[in-house]
Amino acid sequence: MSYRIEKDTMGEVKVLADKLWGAQTERSRNNFKIGAPASMPLEIVYGFAYLKKAAAYTNCELGVLAIEKRDLIAQVCDEILEGKHDDQFPLVIWQTGSGTQSNMNVNEVIANRAHQIAGKVIGEGEKTIQPNDDVNKSQSSNDTFPTGMHIATYKKIVENTIPGVTQLRDTLQKKSEAFKDVVKIGRTHLMDATPLTLGQEFSGYVSQLDHGLKALENTLPHLSELALGGTAVGTGLNTPKGYAKRVAEYIAEFTGLPFITAYNKFEALAAHDAIVESHGALKQIAVSLNKIANDIRMMASGPRSGIGEIIIPANEPGSSIMPGKVNPTQCEALTMVCAQIMGNDVAVTIGGTQGHYELNVFKPMMASNLLQSAQLLGDACVSFDVNCASGIEPNHAVIKELLNNSLMLVTALNTKIGYYKAAEIANTAHKNGTTLKEEAINLGYVTAKDYDEWVKPEDMVGGLK
Amino acid sequence: MSYRIEKDTMGEVKVLADKLWGAQTERSRNNFKIGAPASMPLEIVYGFAYLKKAAAYTNCELGVLAIEKRDLIAQVCDEILEGKHDDQFPLVIWQTGSGTQSNMNVNEVIANRAHQIAGKVIGEGEKTIQPNDDVNKSQSSNDTFPTGMHIATYKKIVENTIPGVTQLRDTLQKKSEAFKDVVKIGRTHLMDATPLTLGQEFSGYVSQLDHGLKALENTLPHLSELALGGTAVGTGLNTPKGYAKRVAEYIAEFTGLPFITAYNKFEALAAHDAIVESHGALKQIAVSLNKIANDIRMMASGPRSGIGEIIIPANEPGSSIMPGKVNPTQCEALTMVCAQIMGNDVAVTIGGTQGHYELNVFKPMMASNLLQSAQLLGDACVSFDVNCASGIEPNHAVIKELLNNSLMLVTALNTKIGYYKAAEIANTAHKNGTTLKEEAINLGYVTAKDYDEWVKPEDMVGGLK
Amino acid sequence: MSYRIEKDTMGEVKVLADKLWGAQTERSRNNFKIGAPASMPLEIVYGFAYLKKAAAYTNCELGVLAIEKRDLIAQVCDEILEGKHDDQFPLVIWQTGSGTQSNMNVNEVIANRAHQIAGKVIGEGEKTIQPNDDVNKSQSSNDTFPTGMHIATYKKIVENTIPGVTQLRDTLQKKSEAFKDVVKIGRTHLMDATPLTLGQEFSGYVSQLDHGLKALENTLPHLSELALGGTAVGTGLNTPKGYAKRVAEYIAEFTGLPFITAYNKFEALAAHDAIVESHGALKQIAVSLNKIANDIRMMASGPRSGIGEIIIPANEPGSSIMPGKVNPTQCEALTMVCAQIMGNDVAVTIGGTQGHYELNVFKPMMASNLLQSAQLLGDACVSFDVNCASGIEPNHAVIKELLNNSLMLVTALNTKIGYYKAAEIANTAHKNGTTLKEEAINLGYVTAKDYDEWVKPEDMVGGLK
Amino acid sequence: MSYRIEKDTMGEVKVLADKLWGAQTERSRNNFKIGAPASMPLEIVYGFAYLKKAAAYTNCELGVLAIEKRDLIAQVCDEILEGKHDDQFPLVIWQTGSGTQSNMNVNEVIANRAHQIAGKVIGEGEKTIQPNDDVNKSQSSNDTFPTGMHIATYKKIVENTIPGVTQLRDTLQKKSEAFKDVVKIGRTHLMDATPLTLGQEFSGYVSQLDHGLKALENTLPHLSELALGGTAVGTGLNTPKGYAKRVAEYIAEFTGLPFITAYNKFEALAAHDAIVESHGALKQIAVSLNKIANDIRMMASGPRSGIGEIIIPANEPGSSIMPGKVNPTQCEALTMVCAQIMGNDVAVTIGGTQGHYELNVFKPMMASNLLQSAQLLGDACVSFDVNCASGIEPNHAVIKELLNNSLMLVTALNTKIGYYKAAEIANTAHKNGTTLKEEAINLGYVTAKDYDEWVKPEDMVGGLK
Repeated sequence: MSYRIEKDTMGEVKVLADKLWGAQTERSRNNFKIGAPASMPLEIVYGFAYLKKAAAYTNCELGVLAIEKRDLIAQVCDEILEGKHDDQFPLVIWQTGSGTQSNMNVNEVIANRAHQIAGKVIGEGEKTIQPNDDVNKSQSSNDTFPTGMHIATYKKIVENTIPGVTQLRDTLQKKSEAFKDVVKIGRTHLMDATPLTLGQEFSGYVSQLDHGLKALENTLPHLSELALGGTAVGTGLNTPKGYAKRVAEYIAEFTGLPFITAYNKFEALAAHDAIVESHGALKQIAVSLNKIANDIRMMASGPRSGIGEIIIPANEPGSSIMPGKVNPTQCEALTMVCAQIMGNDVAVTIGGTQGHYELNVFKPMMASNLLQSAQLLGDACVSFDVNCASGIEPNHAVIKELLNNSLMLVTALNTKIGYYKAAEIANTAHKNGTTLKEEAINLGYVTAKDYDEWVKPEDMVGGLK
Repeated sequence: MSYRIEKDTMGEVKVLADKLWGAQTERSRNNFKIGAPASMPLEIVYGFAYLKKAAAYTNCELGVLAIEKRDLIAQVCDEILEGKHDDQFPLVIWQTGSGTQSNMNVNEVIANRAHQIAGKVIGEGEKTIQPNDDVNKSQSSNDTFPTGMHIATYKKIVENTIPGVTQLRDTLQKKSEAFKDVVKIGRTHLMDATPLTLGQEFSGYVSQLDHGLKALENTLPHLSELALGGTAVGTGLNTPKGYAKRVAEYIAEFTGLPFITAYNKFEALAAHDAIVESHGALKQIAVSLNKIANDIRMMASGPRSGIGEIIIPANEPGSSIMPGKVNPTQCEALTMVCAQIMGNDVAVTIGGTQGHYELNVFKPMMASNLLQSAQLLGDACVSFDVNCASGIEPNHAVIKELLNNSLMLVTALNTKIGYYKAAEIANTAHKNGTTLKEEAINLGYVTAKDYDEWVKPEDMVGGLK
Repeated sequence: MSYRIEKDTMGEVKVLADKLWGAQTERSRNNFKIGAPASMPLEIVYGFAYLKKAAAYTNCELGVLAIEKRDLIAQVCDEILEGKHDDQFPLVIWQTGSGTQSNMNVNEVIANRAHQIAGKVIGEGEKTIQPNDDVNKSQSSNDTFPTGMHIATYKKIVENTIPGVTQLRDTLQKKSEAFKDVVKIGRTHLMDATPLTLGQEFSGYVSQLDHGLKALENTLPHLSELALGGTAVGTGLNTPKGYAKRVAEYIAEFTGLPFITAYNKFEALAAHDAIVESHGALKQIAVSLNKIANDIRMMASGPRSGIGEIIIPANEPGSSIMPGKVNPTQCEALTMVCAQIMGNDVAVTIGGTQGHYELNVFKPMMASNLLQSAQLLGDACVSFDVNCASGIEPNHAVIKELLNNSLMLVTALNTKIGYYKAAEIANTAHKNGTTLKEEAINLGYVTAKDYDEWVKPEDMVGGLK
Repeated sequence: MSYRIEKDTMGEVKVLADKLWGAQTERSRNNFKIGAPASMPLEIVYGFAYLKKAAAYTNCELGVLAIEKRDLIAQVCDEILEGKHDDQFPLVIWQTGSGTQSNMNVNEVIANRAHQIAGKVIGEGEKTIQPNDDVNKSQSSNDTFPTGMHIATYKKIVENTIPGVTQLRDTLQKKSEAFKDVVKIGRTHLMDATPLTLGQEFSGYVSQLDHGLKALENTLPHLSELALGGTAVGTGLNTPKGYAKRVAEYIAEFTGLPFITAYNKFEALAAHDAIVESHGALKQIAVSLNKIANDIRMMASGPRSGIGEIIIPANEPGSSIMPGKVNPTQCEALTMVCAQIMGNDVAVTIGGTQGHYELNVFKPMMASNLLQSAQLLGDACVSFDVNCASGIEPNHAVIKELLNNSLMLVTALNTKIGYYKAAEIANTAHKNGTTLKEEAINLGYVTAKDYDEWVKPEDMVGGLK
């Protein structure tokens, strides 16, 4: 393998000749051999590409960067966003907590690639573009990394999470309507209770997701605030006048998303409560989905010795030993994702607590957890929707049988004969293994005619109307 | 001790003669000896008192409860809210997960106390008011407990948490203004960085709390939704027409808070995402406060061998062995509270995931954690404000010395001589233990005159203006 | 109310005349109004009583404390341990993170009470015993509080948690033996699977708790290490030679528990990994119990429209609206406790991470969480045992019916006709709503005679023998 | 691209011609598009390779598998372990919660590759080896996946985590000895306290890691228990007599690790408390490391305006904007890892609680979190050791200056003049900005001679000796 020499303020470093990165990236590769290589999410690299281009445009517009340099920088950023240099970002999450080396990785790749575009050979001659003085102009890792992570996570949430959750929500809504007349036994404490419709059950799921989506959307304004312009400690040292506001406008323009400059740059560097806030909303949705997935797998359990009220699609052989078995595998994938997100929430929370003075140095960990949670949540909702929820059908025969067995239909008699006599009927029927009607008549509390008139499951589901 | 006999549908139970509760409360006392007695928060009992009164008014208005019964029930509820029966609620959090026995505890106390008010002796004669058929009319534990917990937690948040956090936020804002000209060294990665003002640091804290308060307020609409009217499984079985909406209006009137009937009663019984959502916002504020408290104790560390940039009030002797020691004890109390809240958040999250079918049976645990967190957060902010934040003063001498020592003032030269030469100056001064100015001149990169003009800390803090 | 004047190094403080505490306790009461008063667990106060007595004996033995003072101190400590002064410890958890004021609370109460015992009036004359120089001799809050919390938590674990968990474990073991011949359907993914015995299911629960108890016992050696003797920063400043070892021996003698002096006092003050470690084991047991409680409530679900394979005791009316309802309330109390413990684990973990230099200042929060978890876990196991587990009985009729319905008995044919043909039989029976035997014969894969010989549920449960 | 047809019990599936996997793997790829592809850790695949080989040997030895088939299976397993088929395992963590499809992926790859080795073309002719009937003989996903995950995680802990932590522990031990005479100021509550040596501080870190390693080793016996032999529900259906014990012996032999067959197979399938237990120990070590890393970065803070008592290696330029800055980057990477592990612990805990009946279906999520935590913890310790800990040096000048400034040296006077007078000296010196000695003499409590004799920092660090 052939190498070239790259330099930074600490001296010379050997870098593989075919790589676009420079000295600081190479140092970081060697200093942080923790976990799999290149674990820093590409979404963050792309976030950097947007902001480096925006910074170049702003610097140029404000008179501190030549237009030729601006265009070279912008051209490389576009290439990065097209995915042409994905293999040039070898660093890991577990590096400097400000993400300094990932910022420099981007600076170095842009500078070296710009040198190539300018017709030169990397490592030969003065760099056409300086990584620090040009690409990083009016910036610091301390404001670029949080900007990159807000861009990456905001995009992920609006492009992946919200559409995925919404897709599932819409299917559940359709099911709720389709099942609106399917009267079934209710269950509280896992025990038989008064009836409701299957559609009403599903309407609860829809309501959970509606509240969850609202909660997630509530967090977006905080996440739309960008640190860029704060530079080293939030004061904006070494930035031209008007820079912070203008650079956020460029980022909004380039991404098509409503980013704004952070109201307070000191918070934006030293704390990442916005990440904590958005992740908290993802966790809430995970809580909702866990409930939904559990209900569905319990209602689908059987096929013969479980509850069996609904039928879910059979997507694969369920067992390597039990022939013919079908399992609620999408529920399982989804609940595993939910558990992961609840764990990630604690990691993000802990990271969020530990900002010190002017900087929080848990940035890459916090960002990667939010990205993972947002990706998994959206993907799992789509997978669950396509492969499970959209195929759910009631098993009418089972539903009817379980409904009619229930002793809790007795509740309809409360308002007629009082709670105590109704309880006596239910208890007697339970003890004797008989029906409510038999015992209601035997005990002399209700006539057969009244019983049939008063105890109608289909009349017990509409109190709210 | 003398006893009377109380009855429920399972038979007779002996209850201490001087107690107002009945058979089901007594059973629960004996069946759940878990932790300290009477751990069920009184706030939830008071929440029940509001809703029982509101239910009586609604039932009466809708023609299913006599006005005499309404007034008896309302009178006892008012007594409960005045704190006259605090010792009549002996149950624990760790009971039935729907809080059924706490609902019955309230029903029984109201019924027995009403019997007394009606001039009768408890345990003698037909009960004037029936616990189930009258007090609990048009209700179920499944919709009353979540209603009681929403009332209790909503009140706690708006009456304790938000005012407490706001009080601290306002003090920090005042300090931010008072310290706006105190230029000090910034620190990133705990290391010396470029300067900012102490006021700017505090503005970051204010911004964190502003965002946190906004996040908390965003959760209140969900928490304002009341389950009452859903009864057993959400269908509203055994409620008169119009009940759900009207009963929420009465609760709003009696509490003076903007409660409404839940949009979807199935969610309101089976899931407690609203509790998860509000607790998530408390957790976010805890994350913010943890950062703030840590900063303050680090800046106050010393008095001689720490950072020592600020002085905090000395409220108590700090050590039982080290004479004259003063410690940042309010920071410690606050961060312990923050850690507790972060733990509570996980308990609430786990409880939230485990609703099954028509009911979530982690209600008392979830409610008590949210109440505790809301109480502690508000109280701790007030304590921190009164005993620490409001007395913070800068130690100007130390601040000035540490500022002028810093090598990071060199950053001001980046835009004049470039990042590399600036780095060389800093590194040389660091190695030689000299000043930046000496080395800047020695290296021939800057004249003394230029140095003095370019490197002014007070000019380095206003880039954002 | 009448007051007296108490003094400390900061000056005078007014204290209610009938209280035994002094100036520092009173300051703390006023400075930390966070949550309910007197939240500092009494168990920790008692831990202090043991150690103060042990310190007095050791100081006396090593020649630095007069025997009269030793005896006075010891007498008050004994009174405290008898519960005579429970109302003299009004402080909260949320105080100085080293628990300094609770240490001083104990010192002050002992000094004042000793003054009384010596026939004097509190507040008059020179104190017979000095809180700092005598009661606190050879001690610091920094080593006494962690000692007190190790004593309190170790005792709670061995006297409450382990016996409680063991009691439940033994009942489950008895049930496992009693149910060893009850063949039932197995369920994986909540779906019908191959059979096993109810006794085998319960043996799994026993094995979980055996592993959990072992894990908990593994943590006790670390928890048995006492910080006492480290004083202010771990060096043992101001202690007589031999003190640390001897004082631990006295504590071991007074408590009857195998406490030893910590191998490393710097760790013992600055980190509380022992608390983290023991709480981790409680969390593991909570994980196990959550699984067990869930299984039991699912198997007991019904009574008519659930699984219904086992019957659990009916301890109370289950519903305030649904007459005759019985619920798995002990499972609910237990799983709420489990969720709380999992949350507490995060609080303890976060507290554990935040030791700084020579001291961890999350002591009261960490200790109180471990105490609460240990208490709740032990209590909940006993409650669950007495009120649920010990009364569990199989519902043989249901078990038999569900077993014989199962299509997964087909697995027994794998080794006879291969997985693919067996799957074909199961799938056909599922589609046609027929029995395995019918389809096995129809498809021509098995004769009726072979089927009856090969597919016997009772032969499918003993592969491990 | 060219495809072939693969079949399973549900029918035909098209698979890319150059892939070794079969129908079920392909179904899973399409049904679970959640997160990045191939996220199932290769370590688990390798765990499967060990167990498939061991099963083949055992089946052959017990007379149920032909020796030719055994050898073909074993040969492919060896190839997998050599890393030759890493690209044949495209499935994700977020699949069936029993890992069924990953088990089938291994079965299918082995079967198809064996067909090749036997000189045939995949997809043509009867399979030489059947995925279910041969490769999976005497197995179920339900016992293979937990076996594979125990093998993978046990190996990772003993081969990566323990050596990594031990390496760092040994370096800290060496530093503790090297620094044993470096007397420095102690700090409690971040405030100046009595002195100790830098070596004593480091001895606390060593003690933490020693306890942590012991705690981790305590968990290994549980993790060494293998589920294999339990098959579908724990009964061992379809296994030959003696299989479970023998197959564990083969796995022990092939891996060189002390694996044994699980004492209770019902636990081994239905609960993963062993994973919870081992992860709990990793979390404890993370707690310890977080404390250590925080201390080191605080002590290294500066270089001019922080604490600055120690010097850590400068590994990279610290800032993209502040020239010459050096940061405690290894501390940051390590503490981010710690936060991640604490989050993962919650994910594992939640997964652990949710076993139902005979199976826990959070297996892939739990296993992948334990693997990640074990990998990151070991790697981060090595990185921290090599790039930071081993290069730590005291800054003697700073240490000496900060020590001598301290007012807490006054503690040495407690035993000479009492706590109150000592406090007066310290308070006066603090107020006047003078030295302890000056005020001790001024106040007339101590002579200069006595002061010099009594207050010697180097005599204040050895109380424990």
